[in-house]
Amino acid sequence: MDVQTRAEKAARKLLSGDRASHSFDMRLDTIRPGYAEVSMVVRDDMINGHKTAHGGVVFTLADTAFACACNSHNITNVAANCQISFVRPALLGDRLLARAEEISLGRRSGVYDVRVENGDGKLVALFRGMSMSLDRPLFEEDME
Amino acid sequence: MDVQTRAEKAARKLLSGDRASHSFDMRLDTIRPGYAEVSMVVRDDMINGHKTAHGGVVFTLADTAFACACNSHNITNVAANCQISFVRPALLGDRLLARAEEISLGRRSGVYDVRVENGDGKLVALFRGMSMSLDRPLFEEDME
Amino acid sequence: MDVQTRAEKAARKLLSGDRASHSFDMRLDTIRPGYAEVSMVVRDDMINGHKTAHGGVVFTLADTAFACACNSHNITNVAANCQISFVRPALLGDRLLARAEEISLGRRSGVYDVRVENGDGKLVALFRGMSMSLDRPLFEEDME
Amino acid sequence: MDVQTRAEKAARKLLSGDRASHSFDMRLDTIRPGYAEVSMVVRDDMINGHKTAHGGVVFTLADTAFACACNSHNITNVAANCQISFVRPALLGDRLLARAEEISLGRRSGVYDVRVENGDGKLVALFRGMSMSLDRPLFEEDME
Repeated sequence: MDVQTRAEKAARKLLSGDRASHSFDMRLDTIRPGYAEVSMVVRDDMINGHKTAHGGVVFTLADTAFACACNSHNITNVAANCQISFVRPALLGDRLLARAEEISLGRRSGVYDVRVENGDGKLVALFRGMSMSLDRPLFEEDME
Repeated sequence: MDVQTRAEKAARKLLSGDRASHSFDMRLDTIRPGYAEVSMVVRDDMINGHKTAHGGVVFTLADTAFACACNSHNITNVAANCQISFVRPALLGDRLLARAEEISLGRRSGVYDVRVENGDGKLVALFRGMSMSLDRPLFEEDME
Repeated sequence: MDVQTRAEKAARKLLSGDRASHSFDMRLDTIRPGYAEVSMVVRDDMINGHKTAHGGVVFTLADTAFACACNSHNITNVAANCQISFVRPALLGDRLLARAEEISLGRRSGVYDVRVENGDGKLVALFRGMSMSLDRPLFEEDME
Repeated sequence: MDVQTRAEKAARKLLSGDRASHSFDMRLDTIRPGYAEVSMVVRDDMINGHKTAHGGVVFTLADTAFACACNSHNITNVAANCQISFVRPALLGDRLLARAEEISLGRRSGVYDVRVENGDGKLVALFRGMSMSLDRPLFEEDME
């Protein structure tokens, strides 16, 4: 199986069971080996007490892009550790785009950087995730 | 106004406008100056592609407890930087409890540690948040 | 070998080769399974451009305590990811004490919290380290 | 004063008092507004118990580059929060280069990313620092 097909199948497998991302109306815009773009519009049920997008919502978007990128080689990976810096508030109606990029990949773990931008291309948040491999495939390649 | 009344009013003000926490059915269990406990049950629309609670959902719970604790002195604070370590998956139906504690508070910023535990008291995640003060009250104390 | 003897031998093995900690005159004050205390005095060659202890020096102290704690079970562990929050500057002549505590330990990785305090017991920095196991002993138990 | 001259004077001021960086033989290779490159050779007194560069030494290099970048506008900034991911060990004799880049700069705080590479251009560590402004100049511009 070529690496691009593998990445697409892995993302489809991952997202098909991801009820949380679905309930946030997230959309996978791009998937490549070690790379993913996921977008979402800030709805009124995603607003916090400061009248901006809840930090948890911005994190969830970044985390979903991270999950797609770190599972794209069809080795099951889970998040071990994440860091997020909030740079600019996201507002009601903003379309947020999260781009996750693989910075480093070892046998046991990997590091991924995610930028979340608003519709004007302004930086909303920076996210860095460390993934840990569970040493098993996400889907059986022979059975597909 | 005594500090406990201030903390309660601040949390009420903050959460009354927090649509995201409401849509997750979060409940404020305890609020004190610099301290908050928030709980939530993992619903089936919070599950990720690995069949466990989405990391973003666990983060959102911890972040909400952090927000209640760091705004409890009636000085508006926002999250600047958060770190989360995922220790144990949370499962469908688990009641998660996040306890946020003020570790350090300066004029400009504060540090808060949040533990997220499942119904058996087992650690699910550790969260550390840095808040930044906006130097203005959350509510006008004279007007209350 | 009992767990306390193992922890002591592991720390001795680790620190005997640690030239960096020696050149900082660090001292192991306490070692137990999953726990370590390391102290150090801020010398004038550890000061930064703001006339306080260089953040890297405070980090190095915390990181050394973390290394002692996460290698105390005689399984070689390395730091994968660390986070540090600087709360209060450390000054020339301060004796700093770092206490590293195991918060969670899995087969592949562990989470450790380290508090760095000055001689007055005031908090200087909070450090959180994630260790990754290399699945091999630090020293051969049979050969000792 | 033009921004490049300001950045150079700020770095000179900062490093002239930085005894810790001097004792590590760090060298400022490049300074621009919001950007700095600092390099260093791993000496035998910087080695840890695993026979690689002590994580604290790698952190100290990254932190110094971060300090130069975040003080380059002649507004005194200190590190509030740093995160480091260790990707590849650095070895005795390696020349390490840290490149610090300003990702975001607000009135109160900024975010800086630092890459540490070895002499072969391979990634050793990723560092992210959050600076906090003390709202005062590093040097008096009129007096220079």
